[in-house]
Amino acid sequence: MSLRLDTKDPGRYQELLDKYDTWMFDCDGVLWHGDRLIDGATEVLQILRSQKKRILFVTNNATKSRRNYKKKLDGLGIEAHVDEVFGSAYAAAVYLSSVLNFPVDKRVYVIGMSGLEEELRDEGISFIGGTDPADNTLSAPGEIPPDLSVGAVLVGLDTSINYTKLSRAFRYLHSNPACAFLATNEDSTFPSDKGLLPGAGAVLAPLLTALGPNRPVTAIGKPSGLMLDAIKAKHNLDPERTIMVGDRLNTDIQFGKDGGLATLLVLTGISSEGDLTGPNPSTVVPDYVTPSIGDLRAAVASW
Amino acid sequence: MSLRLDTKDPGRYQELLDKYDTWMFDCDGVLWHGDRLIDGATEVLQILRSQKKRILFVTNNATKSRRNYKKKLDGLGIEAHVDEVFGSAYAAAVYLSSVLNFPVDKRVYVIGMSGLEEELRDEGISFIGGTDPADNTLSAPGEIPPDLSVGAVLVGLDTSINYTKLSRAFRYLHSNPACAFLATNEDSTFPSDKGLLPGAGAVLAPLLTALGPNRPVTAIGKPSGLMLDAIKAKHNLDPERTIMVGDRLNTDIQFGKDGGLATLLVLTGISSEGDLTGPNPSTVVPDYVTPSIGDLRAAVASW
Repeated sequence: MSLRLDTKDPGRYQELLDKYDTWMFDCDGVLWHGDRLIDGATEVLQILRSQKKRILFVTNNATKSRRNYKKKLDGLGIEAHVDEVFGSAYAAAVYLSSVLNFPVDKRVYVIGMSGLEEELRDEGISFIGGTDPADNTLSAPGEIPPDLSVGAVLVGLDTSINYTKLSRAFRYLHSNPACAFLATNEDSTFPSDKGLLPGAGAVLAPLLTALGPNRPVTAIGKPSGLMLDAIKAKHNLDPERTIMVGDRLNTDIQFGKDGGLATLLVLTGISSEGDLTGPNPSTVVPDYVTPSIGDLRAAVASW
Repeated sequence: MSLRLDTKDPGRYQELLDKYDTWMFDCDGVLWHGDRLIDGATEVLQILRSQKKRILFVTNNATKSRRNYKKKLDGLGIEAHVDEVFGSAYAAAVYLSSVLNFPVDKRVYVIGMSGLEEELRDEGISFIGGTDPADNTLSAPGEIPPDLSVGAVLVGLDTSINYTKLSRAFRYLHSNPACAFLATNEDSTFPSDKGLLPGAGAVLAPLLTALGPNRPVTAIGKPSGLMLDAIKAKHNLDPERTIMVGDRLNTDIQFGKDGGLATLLVLTGISSEGDLTGPNPSTVVPDYVTPSIGDLRAAVASW
């Protein structure tokens, strides 16, 4: 059973501030929608900083690198440092370099955007595909010979997804059982400023369908523990004093629970009250629920 | 248990010819691969015609209209008539007009190619999307307002699939519970002349993922009985004397079995001996198995 927070009872918010030192935030749907800040988000982050809390931005959005993210946060007037940002593009690049020890003579075939390429480049991972104009075409693919130099296929959200990219990724994976199959994340949708749109999980779906159940994918982003591993490699965390704030039960809240963190669901994004109390309630139950991140301002108002 | 046919025992093939009056053929992987005829396919069809058998071409390939198919058959030197061809594009158009009585003031949003558009046009169904240059772009989609004039989304194989098309289809379906959700077929792959490539089921997969399990699709092609309904509306069939010849257990053979037809699996396409006798054998078991359609020539050799 979740504890419902309400600005009519500001003491509850103050208790939360007292209890947790590290605050992990999902971004889209929690701090902003597209390019619109959620009311009060900036002030809440300022309150947390003034109380010496550690702030981490933990996002499945793999279209941006950490540096892109920092710029976006700057542009929205949110103080942020690159080492506070953990995106699934970064986590995927770290997974390739540190966990798979990706060989220097191999290349990754990328379905994804420039932010993902930037993180791979920073980790010294060679890649093909991605934003390469040759693969960004609506022509049907020509011959796609097997290529054993492709040691992994990595799929993230790509708004230039097309049949040539899907066909190349499919054939590299189908022809070579040793080729690793990775995804930055599996979010089925994402909340854009133009409304809900298909997410990385939707871009990945054609490959899962064409390859069948014997070729499972390793997804790096939330809810996978691989994302928490990437954070722990950089920050010394006490899970007991860490809270994950998110808008999505099956990614953010699941991620927090699996990692032994406290969890706070905000209702400004994907998951709704109905997902908690409707006829088919989610089995993923957050510790706390509040209508919006901005509600945490109530803690200060109570001082 | 399937009966294994072998050219060393040509009498078995003659028995097949005696037993069945209507011969339904899948095409890709049975009669040809891409633009290459399978050895003996033309002769076998000639033998069947000389014995006054009814021949039907029953294909899930929705990129071609019946007229396109007839041209392809002509080009390969195979005698065929338009009313012998049943493609999933045609069956989908007939389903819209005859089963859904698709209203004249509504439009279908199409993910698919010119053959699908041609069949819709022939059935008098209005549509948008498809090969429209505005939707054949690799730019991210702009605003996609709800459009209640879109009464159905129809998805088929589209080698110009892109994020704009997926986003539009997603939003029409997501914003309007009354919008019908149809697919020509759900084949996960198809055997092209360049090897195996992602099929209509892979093109459809992003929408199933983004929409979730509460928005199921109606797939028209094999193995759906809707395809058999479309055939029965034009031809008076005796299922007891009809045989379905195909290369794919989960579409062709399933289709034949569900329709009460006899089934013959050829091993020149997708399904292999291992699918029948390997460690995880298919639960779909054909009545007969032969290495290739060309083997049926053995019947004549035995005369």
